[in-house]
Formats: sequence, structure tokens, C-alpha cells
Amino acid sequence: MFRNRLRSKRLWDRIVDAEEAARLITDGMTVGMSGFTRAGEAKAVPLALAERAMRDPLKITLMTGASLGHDLDSTLAQAHVIARRLPFQSDPILRNAINSGEVMFIDQHLSETVEFLRNGALAVDIAVVEATAITEDGGIVPTTSVGNSASFAILAPKVIVEINLSQPEGLEGLHDIYIPTRRPSREAIPVMAPDSRIGVPFIPIPAEKIAAIVVTQSSDSDSPVEAPDAETDLIASHLTEFLLREVRRGRLTERLLPLQAGIGTIANAVLHSFTEAPFHDLTMYSEVLQDSTFDLMDAGKLSFASGSSITLSTEKHRRVLAELEHYKRRLILRPQEISNHPEVIRRLGIIAINTALEFDIYGNVNSTHIGGTQMMNGIGGSGDFARNASMSIFVTKSLAKDGTISRVVPMVSHVDHTEHDVDILVTEIGLADLRGLAPRERAEIIIANCVHPIYREALRGYYRRALLRGGHTPHLIEEALAWHDSLRRTGKMLP
Amino acid sequence: MFRNRLRSKRLWDRIVDAEEAARLITDGMTVGMSGFTRAGEAKAVPLALAERAMRDPLKITLMTGASLGHDLDSTLAQAHVIARRLPFQSDPILRNAINSGEVMFIDQHLSETVEFLRNGALAVDIAVVEATAITEDGGIVPTTSVGNSASFAILAPKVIVEINLSQPEGLEGLHDIYIPTRRPSREAIPVMAPDSRIGVPFIPIPAEKIAAIVVTQSSDSDSPVEAPDAETDLIASHLTEFLLREVRRGRLTERLLPLQAGIGTIANAVLHSFTEAPFHDLTMYSEVLQDSTFDLMDAGKLSFASGSSITLSTEKHRRVLAELEHYKRRLILRPQEISNHPEVIRRLGIIAINTALEFDIYGNVNSTHIGGTQMMNGIGGSGDFARNASMSIFVTKSLAKDGTISRVVPMVSHVDHTEHDVDILVTEIGLADLRGLAPRERAEIIIANCVHPIYREALRGYYRRALLRGGHTPHLIEEALAWHDSLRRTGKMLP
Repeated sequence: MFRNRLRSKRLWDRIVDAEEAARLITDGMTVGMSGFTRAGEAKAVPLALAERAMRDPLKITLMTGASLGHDLDSTLAQAHVIARRLPFQSDPILRNAINSGEVMFIDQHLSETVEFLRNGALAVDIAVVEATAITEDGGIVPTTSVGNSASFAILAPKVIVEINLSQPEGLEGLHDIYIPTRRPSREAIPVMAPDSRIGVPFIPIPAEKIAAIVVTQSSDSDSPVEAPDAETDLIASHLTEFLLREVRRGRLTERLLPLQAGIGTIANAVLHSFTEAPFHDLTMYSEVLQDSTFDLMDAGKLSFASGSSITLSTEKHRRVLAELEHYKRRLILRPQEISNHPEVIRRLGIIAINTALEFDIYGNVNSTHIGGTQMMNGIGGSGDFARNASMSIFVTKSLAKDGTISRVVPMVSHVDHTEHDVDILVTEIGLADLRGLAPRERAEIIIANCVHPIYREALRGYYRRALLRGGHTPHLIEEALAWHDSLRRTGKMLP
Repeated sequence: MFRNRLRSKRLWDRIVDAEEAARLITDGMTVGMSGFTRAGEAKAVPLALAERAMRDPLKITLMTGASLGHDLDSTLAQAHVIARRLPFQSDPILRNAINSGEVMFIDQHLSETVEFLRNGALAVDIAVVEATAITEDGGIVPTTSVGNSASFAILAPKVIVEINLSQPEGLEGLHDIYIPTRRPSREAIPVMAPDSRIGVPFIPIPAEKIAAIVVTQSSDSDSPVEAPDAETDLIASHLTEFLLREVRRGRLTERLLPLQAGIGTIANAVLHSFTEAPFHDLTMYSEVLQDSTFDLMDAGKLSFASGSSITLSTEKHRRVLAELEHYKRRLILRPQEISNHPEVIRRLGIIAINTALEFDIYGNVNSTHIGGTQMMNGIGGSGDFARNASMSIFVTKSLAKDGTISRVVPMVSHVDHTEHDVDILVTEIGLADLRGLAPRERAEIIIANCVHPIYREALRGYYRRALLRGGHTPHLIEEALAWHDSLRRTGKMLP
């Protein structure tokens, strides 16, 4: 069996244990690791690195695809290994280190990190990539994510590969590795539909760049999704009704357009709800394929899904990997540069569904910063999709923390998506279609349709008083962030 | 001569005066007019419409490419013709009507308006397009801009054409009209270099859609550019030095990458300064071609320029149109959807230079709203370029209004470009290269390099006090907009 996993015989002598491989990583290096939303990360080498750092301190810049599983970001942060981190994370301990200023975090659009590497603004010293197998010529077959692994391995002078025996051999053939050529003579990215195969099923690097190979056995972390609740059901039903109206008006067909859904419970619940809706022959062109992707396939609603990773709950993980052959012909995993590429997103006309942390009465969205200062996770791919989608939808519950927080505020405390990039807002209260509306019209409809009743009059009052001062986007600038200040001081947005 | 201008004989009987043509526009209609940054707008019909409205009130939604010349937006606003306006304007009287709430203004990325038309979220009832000529089959040859004219004419059921005899016949052949196919089966936009010709040199519509033809004679408005001053010279020299450093580090060649420069004095001055820099064989892939484009061609520095309009000072206008044949083989005018297309901008790796109204210590940029509420002009194409450029540069003078305003503030009062989309900031004080930096690092370098000395200690003090509270992006949320509030109350940002 292992012969299939490491098919280049001359690489057999590179097999070492994780500790030895980790010695290739030294203080001050920039390390590019596989892993995207807790799927397909290198598992043994980062652990060995953290253990070594407890005895013998070192600092690195850590780049990944997105978030890591197995609490690796926690472990590395606790060992004080991470000096800089990009482009995304979702780890509670690393988050604290970021917010305290110990770790410099660069919060990037997920499609852009490798552009910075390619044009020399950033550089990578070594790549650490989890693999299903290594081909005869040294090609790396990724596992449950592609992320930035291909560009890390291609651009780094040295590569450590973790062959993970717990990842099924059947993953081979699932991936489509395509790397854009250098600018200014770059060609078009030839993805014309979610099922376009444009590359090769492995990361093509010369075998001699593989400096160490570690054999591992532990499977991806569980990514439990909270069950839909009454509020996520309402959000889903507002959105389904809206999309059905668009179908009736002839603006969409019942196939809709290729779907993207951000990671998280609400987007997953919305997508899951389409199993009961009259849509059919749906496709996805997304970044993370969550449980709902496979629910939709099982329900006969989804004909194809393209993503950069597969991130599942324990139960779903077991089932999907066991029946991989059944799903495989309807799946592609791509580099995140391609899954999130503005060119492809605009071309396909994607319907993008992402989660807002808060939005304001004019439709600006904060996806990242609690109270305007504390980093939650990062912008991830939401900007890649929202800017270029044919329909950019943001969803959130109207309240948080037992109603002490309204997710709809006079002015967001941090902007990740400007009013120019936000078409539709949905809470459990209702939906606001902002397309073609000026700010004053946006405010009326957002306050009427999306705000929880306990905050509605306060927001309407703010807006009316701001109107007296005039302006294209009326605000009481001295009061615009007062709700956030009140929350900070009193624990409540309103008295 | 006129036979060359109207080559379809069966259209001769459509020639009417402007007043009669304007009668095709009725109350409540959405009208799509040509015109992009004061170039190539329909000139007679909107005037006739405004005159009629003084006697017989009517309201329309007015879409254009961008801003109009000949004070048409003033005239239409004064006649209360405009109920809604998109996607851009720069007119002082219309601006007041927008800020007072009389006119609903939809401030859009310039590449996106026609996507909304194509997917049915917006619709156009009639197009009014300035032409150099009409071909044998009814094809419309635009004049000094393309803007959204092609899609307006194609999507509207009726078209009014203004043949402008003052626009030289030699403009024919300059344009390249390409319209993307409908999604989801859209093809790649085949622009592979600034000089790629991918379409036809006229707007292809059936002759029978042309409902009226008006013959006009008045040339485009003058677009004076202020002469470079000591501060714009410093901005230009900081940027040139930076780009030369990038060349020395091997990240760019002396040909740089295709350039985009936003409209306005500072960007024009920066580009003009490249006539003296050691760059060569430059190209532009931009939206507006200003005086500096032709200065660079005359200096032998610029080998090709692609744009959506030519907007010049009187003197330059006379010279360029007189020597059109000389310049023509090095110029293309495209629909703004193509000049500003994310796909092409990302592919070519454009260096984008746009003007900020203000930016904050973390690199967020406000391009549109004075004091967070009053619309200036609109976002225009700055978002199309900044998001997808290989290098996104924003320039501004560090002070405004005799030093009562700092262009660098604790927190911008409105966000058009988020920190994720801003690579380089330049004022006359200096340049901040933000690539690969976390917010705290950005703050240090912006305060040190870009802020005027009279505001530097105040900003540094704000930042230091914010640091005590911690956070990925430290702010004193109750004080973040205090400079804007002070300006509103006292006319000065600081006492």
C-alpha cells in the first residue's frame, strides 16, 4: 500500500521523523503550510516545531491557505513560534496573541497572497504540505484541501511533505492544479464553468526540492456545524423566497447561478435549506465545501461543486470519505487563487452568500473586527466573492449576546465590504434588496426589514436626526459609533 | 462630407432637431447617455430636455458613463429633471441636489453598471449617444469616449444619436467595442495586453432602433489641469524613487507594468513626471486619458495607451485632434466595462494610481465623502483598479484648506477602499509601503512618513493611547471620528 503513496523510489531515503523534518525550519524563516479551514493541514511537523520551540525558542512567519485544524495555531501561538501570520486564522489563542500585539497578522483577500509572493513583495523559505501521495516524478497529490500549497511548494526552495495514510488514496484525481503565468504576459484563467478541469491532479515540482518526507496517520479535525435553529430557518426562508421572486421575474432560472457560501453555521443552514426548495441542477463555485454541499448532492439538487477544501462534521466526514468514488466525479478542489479568482467569479456570475459580523443602515459590512478593534478571524474569501459576484448577499442574525448587541448599527466600526459591494442583506427579521438604491433609500429599507424590533426605533431615530443635517449619507458623526462605545463601557449597545 | 457621417441612407429621414428628439424622453423614463469625464457626451438633446422641463416638468433616471461636460448635470439639476443619477458625477450643482436629498445618487464601481442592466436589476428605456458617424448598417461610431454607450444602445429599445460634426472623422477606427456574453456561459475577455483589439470599431445595433438623429457642432468642454506645484512634484518624486527601488530589487523592469491613473491634478502630475524618469516603453491601461498621456507619448516614454475617454485641456485638445493620425495607432478607446474590468486588471498586473480624499493610520481610504456625509464626486473606477492591481497606490496632499484639515486621520469617516486594497500611500511628506504589514506596523509607518508635521504628534498620541487598549486595529472608538466632528463644529480638525 505504501508503495502507492510514495511512487518516486529515489525519495525513499528522504523519509524522516517529524522532529528531524522540523529542524529544516529555523529562526526567522517564512514557512508556507498547507491547510484551509481545518482541512488538509500538515499535522506532525508544526507540532514538532512547537515542541522544539518550548526548549529552544524560535520565531517564524507562518503562511497557510486559511485556518488550521488540530488546534495547531493554538499550539504554535502558545509556544510563541508565530511572529507573523497570514492570510487567515480562526483560533481563539492565536486571536488573543494577535489582539495583544504579540503576533503581527496580515488579513488578506484569500486570492491575493500568492500574487504578493509571485511579485516579490513577500517570499517563502520552506513549504510544509500534507499529501495523499507523491507521484513517480515528485508531484505532490494534496489531501482534503489545496489552499496555497501549490504555490508555496513551487516558490519555496525546499519542501517538506507529510504523507498522511489516514487520507484515502481515492483523493487522488480530485484536485485540479493550475498556476497562472507571471504578469504582464498572463493568459486567461480557462475556468468556464464550475466543472472545468484546467490543470493537473498534482502539484508539479522537481523531486529534488523535496527535502524531507514524514509519514502521518491522524485524520482531519472534526468541524461540527451547529444545527439550524428557528432564526437560521427564517434567514434561509427569506432568501429562498427572494430567489424564487427573481426566478418568476425572469432574472434567474431555477438552476440559479453557481453558488458560493462562506464558512459557518448560518451560510451552511441557508444552503442546506435549498434541499427543500424548488431549485434544481445547482452548481457551486465556492471555497469551502461544508456538510450542506453533500446534503444538496444527496438530495439530487446539486450537480457539481468546486472548492478549495472539504471541511466536514465527523459523521459527514466518515460518510463522504467512505463513498468518495460516488462523489468524486462531481467535485473539484482547486488552489484558492483559482477558487476565489475575481476573473472567474465575475465570469460565472456567482451568487455569493457570506456572513456579516455587523452591518450599518447604509449597507457597509464589518466581517472581522469586534468593536472596531478586536480581530475575530479575518476577511477570508468574502471580499473576493462579494466584489465580483452577480449577487452579493450577506446574512446574520439581528441580535447577539442575548440582545445586548444589535448586528445592525448606525455606522459599522470597521469596514470590510463597502456599500458598493453589498446587494442583499438578510436577518431573521427580513431581507433588504439594496440594488439600485441610494443611501437614504437603503437606510429606510434596512431599518424596516432587517433590524430587530427592540432596536428599530433607536436606529430610526438616529437616521431621522441625521437627515436633518443632510448629506448623501446622513450621519451624526459625533454619535455614529456611540453604540460601540456604550457596549465597550457598559456591556450593552443601548441603556 | 456629411455623407460620410451618416452612411445609412434609410436613416436620413430620422434627422430631427434636438427638441423633437428630446420628446422621445418622457416622465419616469430611465435614460442612458454617452459621456465619460466630460468627453463625448450627448450635448443637444439633454439641453433641449432641460428647456422643456422648465415649462413642462418631468423626472428621469439618468445613467451615463461618468461625468458630463458643458455643465449639463448643472443644467439638468437646475431644471429638476434628474430624480436618480448613476454611476458618477462631478458637478457642483448636482452635488448639492444629491446632498440635500433631492436627487438619489447611486455611486457605483464604473465597471458594474452594465452588469446590473444585463441581469435585470436595472433597465434602460432609451439611449442618447454622441457619434462621429453612423455606418451603412446603423453602427454607431463613438467620439471621444465610449463609456457605457455601447451597452445603453444595445439594451435600450430606442436610440437617439447626436452626430457631432466638430468631432473629427479621424476618430473612426479608434474604438474597440466588445460586449461580454451573458452569464453563466460568458467567455474570457480576450484582452491580453493594452493594445489588444478584440471587438469592432463601432457599436453594432440594428439601424431600425435609431429613432432620431440630431446634428450638432459643439466640441467637448475644456478640462483644464492645474499645473504641478511643489507638493505634487514631491509626491511624484517619492513615487518615482520608490518605483526605481522596486526596479533595482528586480521586482519590476524599467517598463514597469501597465499604468492606470485616476482623473485629477495629482495623478496627472505624477504621470507627467515620468517624462523625466528613467522608465521607458511604458503602457497605460486606464480609464481616462488626460494631458499627461500625450506628454508621455511626446517624450517617447509611452508606447501605447488604452482608455475609455480622452479628456484634455483646450491646448492639448486642439493639438491631439489635429494630429490624430499620429497618435491613433497607439491608442484604443474601450467600453468602461472593459477598460475597468477586474479580469483584465488582475491579468495585466496594473500599477494603479488614484487620489484619496483622506486616509487613516491603518490605510483605509475615503474617496468620496467629505466629513463622512457629503458626496464629492463618487468612487468612479478607483475600486475596480485598486482591488485588482498588482500595486494599488493612493496619493494626496497631506493638508487641505490652509492646514485646517489633515488628509491623514485616526479613522476615515467613510470607507471606499479597505486596508486590504491599499498597498502604497504617498503625500508630499513621504511614502508608506504597506505591503505585508499588520495594522500596528502600518500605523507606525504612515504616521512617520505621510503625515504633515503639524498633525504628526496628535496622530501619534491618538495611536499610543489606543495601543493601551489593545486590539488588532487599536482605536479609541469614542474619539476615532472626533477630528471630523471638530471640523464640523469649529472649521478645524484640531483646536
